[in-house]
Amino acid sequence: MASSPTPSFSMFPRFLSFAYGVLIFSSFCHCRRLQDSLKGLTLDSVRDFLTREEDTIVFSLIERAKYPYNSPTYDPSYLHGKFSLVEIFVRETEAVQAKAGRYQNPEEIPFFPNNLPLSLAPPYKFPQVLYPAAASVNVTKTIWTMYFNDLLSLFTTRGNDGNYALTAASDLVCLQALSRRIHYGRFVAEAKYRDAPQDYNPAIRAQDKDALMKLLTSESQEELVKRRVKKKAMVFGQDITLDENDTGDSNSNRTNYKVDPSIAYHLYGDWVIPLTKLVEVEYLLHRLD
Amino acid sequence: MASSPTPSFSMFPRFLSFAYGVLIFSSFCHCRRLQDSLKGLTLDSVRDFLTREEDTIVFSLIERAKYPYNSPTYDPSYLHGKFSLVEIFVRETEAVQAKAGRYQNPEEIPFFPNNLPLSLAPPYKFPQVLYPAAASVNVTKTIWTMYFNDLLSLFTTRGNDGNYALTAASDLVCLQALSRRIHYGRFVAEAKYRDAPQDYNPAIRAQDKDALMKLLTSESQEELVKRRVKKKAMVFGQDITLDENDTGDSNSNRTNYKVDPSIAYHLYGDWVIPLTKLVEVEYLLHRLD
Repeated sequence: MASSPTPSFSMFPRFLSFAYGVLIFSSFCHCRRLQDSLKGLTLDSVRDFLTREEDTIVFSLIERAKYPYNSPTYDPSYLHGKFSLVEIFVRETEAVQAKAGRYQNPEEIPFFPNNLPLSLAPPYKFPQVLYPAAASVNVTKTIWTMYFNDLLSLFTTRGNDGNYALTAASDLVCLQALSRRIHYGRFVAEAKYRDAPQDYNPAIRAQDKDALMKLLTSESQEELVKRRVKKKAMVFGQDITLDENDTGDSNSNRTNYKVDPSIAYHLYGDWVIPLTKLVEVEYLLHRLD
Repeated sequence: MASSPTPSFSMFPRFLSFAYGVLIFSSFCHCRRLQDSLKGLTLDSVRDFLTREEDTIVFSLIERAKYPYNSPTYDPSYLHGKFSLVEIFVRETEAVQAKAGRYQNPEEIPFFPNNLPLSLAPPYKFPQVLYPAAASVNVTKTIWTMYFNDLLSLFTTRGNDGNYALTAASDLVCLQALSRRIHYGRFVAEAKYRDAPQDYNPAIRAQDKDALMKLLTSESQEELVKRRVKKKAMVFGQDITLDENDTGDSNSNRTNYKVDPSIAYHLYGDWVIPLTKLVEVEYLLHRLD
Protein backbone atom coordinates (compact mmCIF):
# COMPACT_ATOMS: atom_id res chain seq x y z
CA MET A 1 0.00 0.00 0.00
CA ALA A 2 2.72 2.48 -0.99
CA SER A 3 1.26 5.95 -0.94
CA SER A 4 3.03 8.13 -3.47
CA PRO A 5 3.33 8.56 -6.36
CA THR A 6 -0.03 6.95 -7.07
CA PRO A 7 0.67 4.19 -9.55
CA SER A 8 -1.47 3.82 -12.64
CA PHE A 9 -1.29 1.83 -15.81
CA SER A 10 -0.31 4.97 -17.68
CA MET A 11 3.06 5.03 -15.88
CA PHE A 12 4.34 1.94 -17.62
CA PRO A 13 6.92 2.20 -20.39
CA ARG A 14 5.56 2.63 -23.88
CA PHE A 15 8.15 0.24 -25.27
CA LEU A 16 5.91 -2.54 -23.99
CA SER A 17 3.81 -1.95 -27.09
CA PHE A 18 6.83 -3.42 -28.91
CA ALA A 19 5.44 -6.66 -27.59
CA TYR A 20 2.49 -6.22 -29.91
CA GLY A 21 4.88 -6.47 -32.83
CA VAL A 22 5.95 -9.83 -31.50
CA LEU A 23 2.29 -10.82 -31.23
CA ILE A 24 1.60 -9.84 -34.86
CA PHE A 25 4.66 -11.69 -36.05
CA SER A 26 3.55 -14.74 -34.11
CA SER A 27 0.28 -14.81 -36.02
CA PHE A 28 2.28 -16.14 -39.00
CA CYS A 29 2.66 -19.30 -36.98
CA HIS A 30 -1.09 -19.44 -36.48
CA CYS A 31 -1.73 -22.58 -38.53
CA ARG A 32 0.79 -24.60 -36.54
CA ARG A 33 -0.53 -23.30 -33.22
CA LEU A 34 -4.13 -23.87 -34.30
CA GLN A 35 -3.31 -27.51 -34.91
CA ASP A 36 -1.57 -27.82 -31.54
CA SER A 37 -4.28 -26.00 -29.63
CA LEU A 38 -7.09 -28.03 -31.09
CA LYS A 39 -5.77 -31.02 -29.22
CA GLY A 40 -7.03 -29.23 -26.11
CA LEU A 41 -10.44 -28.26 -27.54
CA THR A 42 -12.78 -31.23 -27.34
CA LEU A 43 -16.52 -31.63 -27.00
CA ASP A 44 -15.84 -32.68 -23.40
CA SER A 45 -13.71 -29.62 -22.56
CA VAL A 46 -16.34 -27.37 -24.11
CA ARG A 47 -19.09 -29.02 -22.07
CA ASP A 48 -17.02 -28.66 -18.87
CA PHE A 49 -16.51 -24.95 -19.56
CA LEU A 50 -20.22 -24.34 -20.18
CA THR A 51 -21.22 -26.27 -17.06
CA ARG A 52 -18.79 -24.32 -14.86
CA GLU A 53 -19.96 -21.05 -16.40
CA GLU A 54 -23.53 -21.85 -15.28
CA ASP A 55 -22.34 -21.53 -11.67
CA THR A 56 -20.75 -18.16 -12.42
CA ILE A 57 -23.93 -16.88 -14.08
CA VAL A 58 -26.17 -18.03 -11.21
CA PHE A 59 -23.80 -16.55 -8.60
CA SER A 60 -23.78 -13.25 -10.50
CA LEU A 61 -27.59 -13.07 -10.63
CA ILE A 62 -27.85 -13.85 -6.90
CA GLU A 63 -25.32 -11.12 -6.13
CA ARG A 64 -27.12 -8.55 -8.29
CA ALA A 65 -30.39 -9.48 -6.56
CA LYS A 66 -28.92 -8.21 -3.24
CA TYR A 67 -29.83 -4.74 -4.48
CA PRO A 68 -33.23 -3.54 -5.69
CA TYR A 69 -33.70 -2.42 -9.28
CA ASN A 70 -32.19 1.02 -8.48
CA SER A 71 -33.50 2.88 -11.51
CA PRO A 72 -31.17 5.94 -11.25
CA THR A 73 -28.35 3.60 -12.33
CA TYR A 74 -30.01 3.40 -15.77
CA ASP A 75 -31.45 6.89 -16.15
CA PRO A 76 -29.21 9.36 -18.04
CA SER A 77 -30.96 12.31 -16.36
CA TYR A 78 -29.57 11.16 -13.00
CA LEU A 79 -26.11 12.38 -14.06
CA HIS A 80 -27.52 15.38 -15.99
CA GLY A 81 -26.02 14.06 -19.19
CA LYS A 82 -26.52 11.86 -22.22
CA PHE A 83 -25.35 8.62 -20.65
CA SER A 84 -26.49 6.45 -17.79
CA LEU A 85 -24.28 5.72 -14.80
CA VAL A 86 -24.10 2.05 -15.77
CA GLU A 87 -22.92 2.81 -19.31
CA ILE A 88 -20.18 5.13 -18.12
CA PHE A 89 -19.24 2.69 -15.36
CA VAL A 90 -18.93 -0.22 -17.79
CA ARG A 91 -16.90 1.86 -20.28
CA GLU A 92 -14.44 3.08 -17.63
CA THR A 93 -14.13 -0.35 -15.96
CA GLU A 94 -13.53 -2.03 -19.31
CA ALA A 95 -10.78 0.51 -19.99
CA VAL A 96 -9.03 -0.43 -16.72
CA GLN A 97 -9.45 -4.13 -17.50
CA ALA A 98 -8.20 -3.68 -21.06
CA LYS A 99 -5.02 -2.04 -19.78
CA ALA A 100 -4.57 -5.03 -17.45
CA GLY A 101 -4.80 -7.37 -20.46
CA ARG A 102 -8.30 -8.84 -20.12
CA TYR A 103 -9.06 -8.80 -23.83
CA GLN A 104 -5.89 -10.61 -24.82
CA ASN A 105 -7.87 -13.75 -24.00
CA PRO A 106 -10.04 -14.52 -27.05
CA GLU A 107 -12.80 -15.72 -24.70
CA GLU A 108 -13.27 -12.13 -23.47
CA ILE A 109 -15.08 -9.49 -25.55
CA PRO A 110 -15.70 -5.92 -24.35
CA PHE A 111 -19.13 -4.28 -24.62
CA PHE A 112 -17.53 -0.99 -25.72
CA PRO A 113 -14.50 -1.86 -27.86
CA ASN A 114 -14.09 1.62 -29.37
CA ASN A 115 -11.21 3.66 -27.97
CA LEU A 116 -10.17 0.98 -25.47
CA PRO A 117 -6.58 1.50 -24.34
CA LEU A 118 -4.00 -1.09 -25.34
CA SER A 119 -2.99 -3.73 -22.86
CA LEU A 120 0.07 -2.71 -20.89
CA ALA A 121 0.62 -6.26 -19.69
CA PRO A 122 3.05 -8.26 -21.80
CA PRO A 123 1.35 -10.52 -24.37
CA TYR A 124 0.40 -14.00 -23.20
CA LYS A 125 0.14 -16.87 -25.67
CA PHE A 126 -3.47 -17.89 -25.21
CA PRO A 127 -4.38 -20.94 -27.29
CA GLN A 128 -5.56 -19.75 -30.70
CA VAL A 129 -8.24 -22.33 -31.45
CA LEU A 130 -10.76 -20.22 -33.37
CA TYR A 131 -10.80 -20.05 -37.16
CA PRO A 132 -9.62 -16.47 -37.80
CA ALA A 133 -12.20 -15.57 -40.46
CA ALA A 134 -15.03 -16.65 -38.15
CA ALA A 135 -13.70 -15.49 -34.77
CA SER A 136 -15.15 -11.96 -34.84
CA VAL A 137 -18.79 -12.97 -34.34
CA ASN A 138 -20.15 -10.50 -31.79
CA VAL A 139 -23.60 -10.19 -30.16
CA THR A 140 -22.69 -7.87 -27.28
CA LYS A 141 -25.32 -5.29 -28.33
CA THR A 142 -28.04 -7.96 -28.21
CA ILE A 143 -26.85 -9.14 -24.78
CA TRP A 144 -26.77 -5.56 -23.46
CA THR A 145 -30.33 -4.89 -24.66
CA MET A 146 -31.66 -8.25 -23.42
CA TYR A 147 -30.10 -7.78 -19.98
CA PHE A 148 -31.40 -4.27 -19.33
CA ASN A 149 -34.71 -4.40 -21.22
CA ASP A 150 -35.88 -7.94 -20.48
CA LEU A 151 -33.97 -9.72 -17.74
CA LEU A 152 -33.11 -7.22 -15.01
CA SER A 153 -36.61 -6.38 -13.84
CA LEU A 154 -37.46 -10.09 -13.63
CA PHE A 155 -35.00 -10.95 -10.85
CA THR A 156 -34.62 -7.69 -8.91
CA THR A 157 -37.12 -6.22 -6.49
CA ARG A 158 -38.62 -2.79 -7.09
CA GLY A 159 -37.01 -0.05 -5.10
CA ASN A 160 -34.03 2.14 -4.54
CA ASP A 161 -31.36 1.84 -1.86
CA GLY A 162 -28.80 4.31 -3.23
CA ASN A 163 -26.15 1.68 -3.99
CA TYR A 164 -25.87 2.63 -7.66
CA ALA A 165 -22.13 2.01 -7.99
CA LEU A 166 -22.47 -1.43 -6.38
CA THR A 167 -25.46 -2.08 -8.62
CA ALA A 168 -23.52 -1.15 -11.76
CA ALA A 169 -20.57 -3.28 -10.63
CA SER A 170 -22.92 -6.26 -10.12
CA ASP A 171 -24.54 -5.64 -13.50
CA LEU A 172 -21.13 -5.71 -15.15
CA VAL A 173 -20.28 -9.06 -13.53
CA CYS A 174 -23.60 -10.48 -14.85
CA LEU A 175 -23.04 -9.03 -18.32
CA GLN A 176 -19.48 -10.36 -18.52
CA ALA A 177 -20.56 -13.85 -17.39
CA LEU A 178 -23.45 -13.97 -19.88
CA SER A 179 -21.28 -12.62 -22.70
CA ARG A 180 -18.47 -15.09 -21.98
CA ARG A 181 -20.95 -17.99 -22.06
CA ILE A 182 -22.76 -16.86 -25.19
CA HIS A 183 -19.62 -15.98 -27.16
CA TYR A 184 -18.16 -19.33 -26.13
CA GLY A 185 -20.52 -20.53 -28.87
CA ARG A 186 -17.56 -19.85 -31.18
CA PHE A 187 -15.53 -22.49 -29.35
CA VAL A 188 -18.52 -24.85 -29.21
CA ALA A 189 -18.97 -24.51 -32.96
CA GLU A 190 -15.28 -25.06 -33.64
CA ALA A 191 -15.24 -28.21 -31.48
CA LYS A 192 -18.38 -29.57 -33.16
CA TYR A 193 -17.03 -28.75 -36.61
CA ARG A 194 -13.67 -30.44 -35.95
CA ASP A 195 -15.50 -33.46 -34.61
CA ALA A 196 -17.50 -33.99 -37.83
CA PRO A 197 -16.68 -31.49 -40.61
CA GLN A 198 -18.45 -33.62 -43.19
CA ASP A 199 -21.76 -33.03 -41.37
CA TYR A 200 -21.42 -29.24 -41.58
CA ASN A 201 -19.65 -28.57 -44.89
CA PRO A 202 -22.71 -28.83 -47.19
CA ALA A 203 -24.78 -26.41 -45.11
CA ILE A 204 -21.82 -24.03 -44.77
CA ARG A 205 -21.20 -24.05 -48.53
CA ALA A 206 -24.91 -23.42 -49.11
CA GLN A 207 -24.83 -20.70 -46.39
CA ASP A 208 -27.97 -22.38 -45.07
CA LYS A 209 -28.61 -20.97 -41.59
CA ASP A 210 -31.68 -23.13 -40.95
CA ALA A 211 -29.84 -26.32 -41.77
CA LEU A 212 -26.95 -25.30 -39.48
CA MET A 213 -29.36 -24.41 -36.68
CA LYS A 214 -30.98 -27.82 -37.04
CA LEU A 215 -27.60 -29.57 -36.91
CA LEU A 216 -26.68 -27.63 -33.73
CA THR A 217 -29.96 -28.20 -31.91
CA SER A 218 -30.58 -30.99 -29.44
CA GLU A 219 -33.80 -30.29 -27.59
CA SER A 220 -33.21 -33.03 -25.02
CA GLN A 221 -29.72 -31.69 -24.22
CA GLU A 222 -31.06 -28.13 -23.98
CA GLU A 223 -33.80 -29.24 -21.59
CA LEU A 224 -31.18 -30.92 -19.43
CA VAL A 225 -29.11 -27.72 -19.30
CA LYS A 226 -32.15 -25.60 -18.40
CA ARG A 227 -33.15 -27.98 -15.62
CA ARG A 228 -29.61 -28.04 -14.25
CA VAL A 229 -29.42 -24.23 -14.22
CA LYS A 230 -32.77 -24.10 -12.43
CA LYS A 231 -31.43 -26.54 -9.86
CA LYS A 232 -28.30 -24.44 -9.42
CA ALA A 233 -30.49 -21.40 -8.69
CA MET A 234 -32.29 -23.51 -6.07
CA VAL A 235 -29.13 -24.86 -4.44
CA PHE A 236 -27.01 -21.68 -4.57
CA GLY A 237 -29.88 -19.32 -3.80
CA GLN A 238 -31.29 -21.06 -0.74
CA ASP A 239 -30.78 -19.87 2.84
CA ILE A 240 -28.27 -22.30 4.34
CA THR A 241 -28.92 -23.22 7.95
CA LEU A 242 -27.32 -25.75 10.27
CA ASP A 243 -30.34 -28.04 10.31
CA GLU A 244 -30.05 -31.49 11.79
CA ASN A 245 -29.35 -33.33 8.53
CA ASP A 246 -26.64 -30.84 7.46
CA THR A 247 -26.86 -31.83 3.80
CA GLY A 248 -27.64 -28.59 2.03
CA ASP A 249 -30.90 -30.12 0.86
CA SER A 250 -32.46 -27.51 -1.38
CA ASN A 251 -35.97 -28.70 -0.53
CA SER A 252 -35.79 -27.29 2.97
CA ASN A 253 -36.05 -23.57 2.10
CA ARG A 254 -38.11 -23.65 -1.03
CA THR A 255 -39.65 -20.22 -0.54
CA ASN A 256 -36.45 -18.32 0.21
CA TYR A 257 -34.59 -18.50 -3.09
CA LYS A 258 -32.61 -15.34 -3.73
CA VAL A 259 -33.36 -15.59 -7.46
CA ASP A 260 -36.51 -17.37 -8.65
CA PRO A 261 -35.22 -20.65 -10.14
CA SER A 262 -37.78 -20.47 -12.94
CA ILE A 263 -36.22 -17.14 -14.04
CA ALA A 264 -32.86 -18.92 -14.36
CA TYR A 265 -34.59 -21.67 -16.38
CA HIS A 266 -36.18 -19.14 -18.74
CA LEU A 267 -33.02 -17.02 -18.99
CA TYR A 268 -31.32 -20.06 -20.47
CA GLY A 269 -34.29 -21.18 -22.54
CA ASP A 270 -35.23 -17.80 -23.97
CA TRP A 271 -31.86 -16.05 -24.27
CA VAL A 272 -28.64 -17.84 -23.30
CA ILE A 273 -29.12 -21.02 -25.36
CA PRO A 274 -30.69 -19.30 -28.43
CA LEU A 275 -27.97 -16.59 -28.45
CA THR A 276 -25.22 -19.18 -28.07
CA LYS A 277 -26.65 -21.09 -31.03
CA LEU A 278 -26.89 -17.85 -33.02
CA VAL A 279 -23.16 -17.32 -32.34
CA GLU A 280 -22.48 -20.92 -33.39
CA VAL A 281 -24.38 -20.51 -36.67
CA GLU A 282 -22.70 -17.17 -37.49
CA TYR A 283 -19.30 -18.69 -36.72
CA LEU A 284 -19.91 -21.74 -38.93
CA LEU A 285 -21.13 -19.59 -41.82
CA HIS A 286 -17.56 -18.25 -42.02
CA ARG A 287 -15.80 -21.51 -41.17
CA LEU A 288 -14.77 -22.17 -44.78
CA ASP A 289 -14.02 -18.54 -45.77
CA MET B 1 -24.03 1.81 -27.12
CA ALA B 2 -23.49 5.31 -28.56
CA SER B 3 -20.05 5.55 -30.07
CA SER B 4 -18.84 9.12 -29.87
CA PRO B 5 -17.93 11.10 -27.92
CA THR B 6 -16.91 8.38 -25.49
CA PRO B 7 -18.63 9.26 -22.24
CA SER B 8 -16.67 9.28 -19.02
CA PHE B 9 -17.29 10.45 -15.50
CA SER B 10 -15.03 13.45 -16.12
CA MET B 11 -17.60 14.91 -18.55
CA PHE B 12 -20.12 15.64 -15.85
CA PRO B 13 -20.71 19.19 -14.63
CA ARG B 14 -18.55 20.34 -11.76
CA PHE B 15 -21.46 22.13 -10.17
CA LEU B 16 -22.52 18.73 -8.89
CA SER B 17 -19.90 19.18 -6.20
CA PHE B 18 -22.26 21.87 -4.89
CA ALA B 19 -24.20 18.89 -3.68
CA TYR B 20 -21.39 18.23 -1.24
CA GLY B 21 -22.18 21.51 0.43
CA VAL B 22 -25.68 20.26 0.96
CA LEU B 23 -24.25 17.07 2.42
CA ILE B 24 -22.05 19.00 4.87
CA PHE B 25 -24.94 21.20 5.90
CA SER B 26 -27.06 18.13 6.42
CA SER B 27 -24.56 16.78 8.94
CA PHE B 28 -25.89 19.41 11.37
CA CYS B 29 -29.00 17.30 11.45
CA HIS B 30 -26.92 14.24 12.26
CA CYS B 31 -28.24 13.73 15.80
CA ARG B 32 -31.83 13.64 14.64
CA ARG B 33 -31.03 11.31 11.75
CA LEU B 34 -28.90 9.07 13.99
CA GLN B 35 -31.89 8.62 16.25
CA ASP B 36 -34.17 7.85 13.29
CA SER B 37 -31.74 5.49 11.64
CA LEU B 38 -31.08 3.50 14.75
CA LYS B 39 -34.62 2.26 14.61
CA GLY B 40 -33.46 0.26 11.58
CA LEU B 41 -30.24 -1.05 13.18
CA THR B 42 -31.04 -4.00 15.41
CA LEU B 43 -29.15 -7.07 16.50
CA ASP B 44 -31.41 -9.03 14.13
CA SER B 45 -30.73 -6.78 11.11
CA VAL B 46 -26.99 -6.97 11.84
CA ARG B 47 -27.14 -10.76 12.01
CA ASP B 48 -29.08 -10.93 8.73
CA PHE B 49 -26.47 -8.76 7.02
CA LEU B 50 -23.59 -10.89 8.27
CA THR B 51 -25.32 -14.12 7.27
CA ARG B 52 -26.03 -12.86 3.73
CA GLU B 53 -22.47 -11.60 3.43
CA GLU B 54 -21.21 -15.15 4.09
CA ASP B 55 -22.78 -16.21 0.78
CA THR B 56 -21.06 -13.33 -1.03
CA ILE B 57 -17.68 -14.24 0.48
CA VAL B 58 -18.02 -17.94 -0.39
CA PHE B 59 -19.16 -17.12 -3.95
CA SER B 60 -16.19 -14.77 -4.36
CA LEU B 61 -13.68 -17.42 -3.22
CA ILE B 62 -15.22 -20.01 -5.57
CA GLU B 63 -15.00 -17.56 -8.46
CA ARG B 64 -11.37 -16.68 -7.70
CA ALA B 65 -10.57 -20.41 -7.53
CA LYS B 66 -11.53 -20.73 -11.24
CA TYR B 67 -8.07 -19.38 -11.97
CA PRO B 68 -4.75 -20.72 -10.70
CA TYR B 69 -2.56 -18.62 -8.43
CA ASN B 70 -1.20 -16.65 -11.44
CA SER B 71 1.87 -15.20 -9.75
CA PRO B 72 2.60 -12.46 -12.38
CA THR B 73 -0.51 -10.69 -11.07
CA TYR B 74 1.39 -10.03 -7.82
CA ASP B 75 4.95 -9.55 -9.07
CA PRO B 76 5.95 -5.90 -9.68
CA SER B 77 8.68 -7.01 -12.11
CA TYR B 78 5.98 -8.33 -14.47
CA LEU B 79 5.08 -4.73 -15.38
CA HIS B 80 8.71 -3.53 -15.16
CA GLY B 81 7.77 -1.11 -12.41
CA LYS B 82 7.39 -0.61 -8.68
CA PHE B 83 3.82 -1.88 -8.40
CA SER B 84 2.07 -5.15 -9.04
CA LEU B 85 -0.70 -5.50 -11.60
CA VAL B 86 -3.20 -6.20 -8.83
CA GLU B 87 -2.30 -3.06 -6.89
CA ILE B 88 -2.64 -0.84 -9.96
CA PHE B 89 -5.82 -2.63 -10.98
CA VAL B 90 -7.41 -2.13 -7.55
CA ARG B 91 -6.41 1.55 -7.41
CA GLU B 92 -7.80 2.31 -10.88
CA THR B 93 -10.99 0.31 -10.33
CA GLU B 94 -11.58 2.00 -6.97
CA ALA B 95 -11.20 5.36 -8.71
CA VAL B 96 -13.94 4.44 -11.22
CA GLN B 97 -16.16 3.16 -8.42
CA ALA B 98 -15.52 6.28 -6.30
CA LYS B 99 -16.67 8.50 -9.16
CA ALA B 100 -19.82 6.37 -9.40
CA GLY B 101 -20.48 7.01 -5.70
CA ARG B 102 -19.54 3.69 -4.09
CA TYR B 103 -17.93 5.26 -1.04
CA GLN B 104 -20.90 7.45 -0.20
CA ASN B 105 -22.23 4.33 1.52
CA PRO B 106 -20.54 4.18 4.95
CA GLU B 107 -20.45 0.37 4.65
CA GLU B 108 -17.89 0.69 1.84
CA ILE B 109 -14.24 1.54 2.49
CA PRO B 110 -11.59 1.77 -0.25
CA PHE B 111 -8.22 0.04 0.06
CA PHE B 112 -6.46 3.07 -1.42
CA PRO B 113 -8.30 6.17 -0.21
CA ASN B 114 -5.55 8.65 -1.12
CA ASN B 115 -6.24 10.74 -4.21
CA LEU B 116 -9.58 9.09 -4.93
CA PRO B 117 -11.74 11.28 -7.17
CA LEU B 118 -14.93 12.75 -5.71
CA SER B 119 -18.22 11.09 -6.44
CA LEU B 120 -19.92 12.62 -9.44
CA ALA B 121 -23.22 10.99 -8.55
CA PRO B 122 -25.55 13.20 -6.53
CA PRO B 123 -25.39 12.53 -2.76
CA TYR B 124 -27.70 9.84 -1.44
CA LYS B 125 -28.91 9.96 2.16
CA PHE B 126 -27.57 6.67 3.47
CA PRO B 127 -28.65 6.04 7.06
CA GLN B 128 -26.02 7.55 9.36
CA VAL B 129 -26.04 5.03 12.19
CA LEU B 130 -22.39 5.08 13.22
CA TYR B 131 -21.10 7.24 16.05
CA PRO B 132 -19.01 9.83 14.16
CA ALA B 133 -15.98 9.80 16.48
CA ALA B 134 -15.74 5.99 16.16
CA ALA B 135 -16.70 5.48 12.52
CA SER B 136 -13.22 5.80 11.02
CA VAL B 137 -11.88 2.48 12.31
CA ASN B 138 -10.00 0.97 9.38
CA VAL B 139 -8.16 -2.36 8.98
CA THR B 140 -7.88 -2.45 5.18
CA LYS B 141 -4.08 -2.81 5.33
CA THR B 142 -4.41 -5.87 7.56
CA ILE B 143 -7.02 -7.40 5.23
CA TRP B 144 -4.85 -6.72 2.17
CA THR B 145 -1.83 -8.40 3.79
CA MET B 146 -3.85 -11.34 5.12
CA TYR B 147 -5.48 -11.97 1.75
CA PHE B 148 -2.31 -11.96 -0.33
CA ASN B 149 0.18 -13.37 2.17
CA ASP B 150 -1.92 -15.97 3.95
CA LEU B 151 -5.21 -16.80 2.28
CA LEU B 152 -4.74 -16.76 -1.49
CA SER B 153 -2.31 -19.67 -1.81
CA LEU B 154 -4.57 -21.83 0.38
CA PHE B 155 -7.53 -21.92 -2.02
CA THR B 156 -5.96 -21.51 -5.46
CA THR B 157 -4.08 -24.16 -7.40
CA ARG B 158 -0.47 -23.59 -8.42
CA GLY B 159 -0.04 -22.52 -11.98
CA ASN B 160 -0.44 -19.80 -14.55
CA ASP B 161 -3.10 -19.48 -17.24
CA GLY B 162 -2.43 -15.89 -18.35
CA ASN B 163 -5.75 -14.51 -17.08
CA TYR B 164 -4.13 -11.87 -14.88
CA ALA B 165 -6.78 -9.19 -15.39
CA LEU B 166 -9.57 -11.64 -14.58
CA THR B 167 -7.55 -12.82 -11.59
CA ALA B 168 -7.10 -9.27 -10.29
CA ALA B 169 -10.81 -8.56 -10.84
CA SER B 170 -11.71 -11.70 -8.85
CA ASP B 171 -9.25 -10.74 -6.11
CA LEU B 172 -10.89 -7.33 -5.83
CA VAL B 173 -14.34 -8.90 -5.44
CA CYS B 174 -12.97 -11.13 -2.63
CA LEU B 175 -11.21 -8.21 -0.95
CA GLN B 176 -14.30 -5.99 -1.11
CA ALA B 177 -16.52 -8.74 0.31
CA LEU B 178 -14.10 -9.49 3.16
CA SER B 179 -13.60 -5.80 3.92
CA ARG B 180 -17.34 -5.09 3.91
CA ARG B 181 -17.94 -7.95 6.36
CA ILE B 182 -15.05 -7.08 8.65
CA HIS B 183 -15.74 -3.33 8.73
CA TYR B 184 -19.38 -4.10 9.40
CA GLY B 185 -18.01 -4.75 12.87
CA ARG B 186 -18.62 -1.02 13.38
CA PHE B 187 -22.36 -1.57 12.85
CA VAL B 188 -22.31 -4.72 14.98
CA ALA B 189 -20.64 -2.81 17.81
CA GLU B 190 -23.10 0.09 17.53
CA ALA B 191 -26.08 -2.30 17.63
CA LYS B 192 -24.66 -4.17 20.62
CA TYR B 193 -23.84 -0.92 22.41
CA ARG B 194 -27.31 0.55 21.84
CA ASP B 195 -28.82 -2.71 23.06
CA ALA B 196 -27.04 -2.53 26.44
CA PRO B 197 -24.85 0.57 26.91
CA GLN B 198 -24.57 -0.07 30.64
CA ASP B 199 -22.66 -3.31 29.91
CA TYR B 200 -20.03 -1.50 27.82
CA ASN B 201 -19.62 1.92 29.45
CA PRO B 202 -17.27 0.88 32.29
CA ALA B 203 -14.85 -0.90 29.95
CA ILE B 204 -15.02 1.98 27.44
CA ARG B 205 -14.28 4.55 30.17
CA ALA B 206 -11.37 2.40 31.38
CA GLN B 207 -10.26 1.94 27.73
CA ASP B 208 -9.97 -1.74 28.61
CA LYS B 209 -9.59 -3.65 25.33
CA ASP B 210 -9.49 -7.06 26.98
CA ALA B 211 -12.72 -6.47 28.86
CA LEU B 212 -14.40 -5.26 25.66
CA MET B 213 -13.14 -8.27 23.72
CA LYS B 214 -14.52 -10.53 26.42
CA LEU B 215 -17.92 -8.81 26.27
CA LEU B 216 -18.00 -9.20 22.48
CA THR B 217 -16.96 -12.84 22.38
CA SER B 218 -19.38 -15.75 22.24
CA GLU B 219 -17.44 -18.90 21.40
CA SER B 220 -20.57 -20.96 20.78
CA GLN B 221 -21.96 -18.36 18.36
CA GLU B 222 -18.61 -18.13 16.58
CA GLU B 223 -18.45 -21.90 16.21
CA LEU B 224 -21.94 -21.85 14.70
CA VAL B 225 -20.90 -19.19 12.16
CA LYS B 226 -17.75 -21.12 11.20
CA ARG B 227 -19.73 -24.33 10.71
CA ARG B 228 -22.34 -22.53 8.63
CA VAL B 229 -19.68 -20.97 6.39
CA LYS B 230 -18.07 -24.39 5.95
CA LYS B 231 -21.44 -25.79 4.94
CA LYS B 232 -21.95 -22.93 2.47
CA ALA B 233 -18.60 -23.80 0.86
CA MET B 234 -19.83 -27.41 0.58
CA VAL B 235 -23.24 -26.52 -0.87
CA PHE B 236 -22.17 -23.69 -3.19
CA GLY B 237 -18.91 -25.33 -4.26
CA GLN B 238 -20.25 -28.76 -5.22
CA ASP B 239 -20.77 -29.95 -8.79
CA ILE B 240 -24.52 -29.89 -9.33
CA THR B 241 -25.89 -32.75 -11.40
CA LEU B 242 -29.43 -33.83 -12.22
CA ASP B 243 -29.31 -36.92 -10.04
CA GLU B 244 -32.48 -38.85 -9.37
CA ASN B 245 -33.32 -37.21 -6.04
CA ASP B 246 -32.78 -33.65 -7.42
CA THR B 247 -32.27 -32.17 -3.96
CA GLY B 248 -28.90 -30.48 -4.20
CA ASP B 249 -27.68 -32.80 -1.48
CA SER B 250 -24.12 -31.70 -0.75
CA ASN B 251 -23.13 -35.22 0.26
CA SER B 252 -23.28 -36.50 -3.29
CA ASN B 253 -20.11 -34.84 -4.62
CA ARG B 254 -18.01 -34.58 -1.53
CA THR B 255 -14.66 -34.68 -3.33
CA ASN B 256 -15.41 -32.03 -5.95
CA TYR B 257 -15.66 -28.88 -3.86
CA LYS B 258 -14.34 -25.86 -5.75
CA VAL B 259 -12.97 -24.40 -2.51
CA ASP B 260 -11.98 -26.71 0.36
CA PRO B 261 -14.74 -26.17 2.98
CA SER B 262 -12.20 -26.39 5.80
CA ILE B 263 -10.38 -23.36 4.29
CA ALA B 264 -13.64 -21.39 4.54
CA TYR B 265 -13.99 -22.55 8.15
CA HIS B 266 -10.46 -21.43 9.01
CA LEU B 267 -10.76 -18.17 7.06
CA TYR B 268 -13.59 -17.24 9.40
CA GLY B 269 -11.97 -18.67 12.53
CA ASP B 270 -8.49 -17.27 12.00
CA TRP B 271 -9.19 -13.97 10.23
CA VAL B 272 -12.75 -12.84 9.53
CA ILE B 273 -14.17 -13.22 13.05
CA PRO B 274 -11.03 -11.98 14.90
CA LEU B 275 -10.70 -8.96 12.59
CA THR B 276 -14.40 -8.13 12.90
CA LYS B 277 -14.03 -8.23 16.70
CA LEU B 278 -10.92 -6.06 16.47
CA VAL B 279 -13.01 -3.50 14.54
CA GLU B 280 -15.76 -3.78 17.17
CA VAL B 281 -13.31 -3.15 20.02
CA GLU B 282 -11.63 -0.21 18.26
CA TYR B 283 -15.05 1.27 17.51
CA LEU B 284 -16.26 0.93 21.09
CA LEU B 285 -13.06 2.49 22.49
CA HIS B 286 -14.20 5.74 20.80
CA ARG B 287 -17.93 5.30 21.45
CA LEU B 288 -17.94 7.85 24.30
CA ASP B 289 -15.46 10.34 22.79
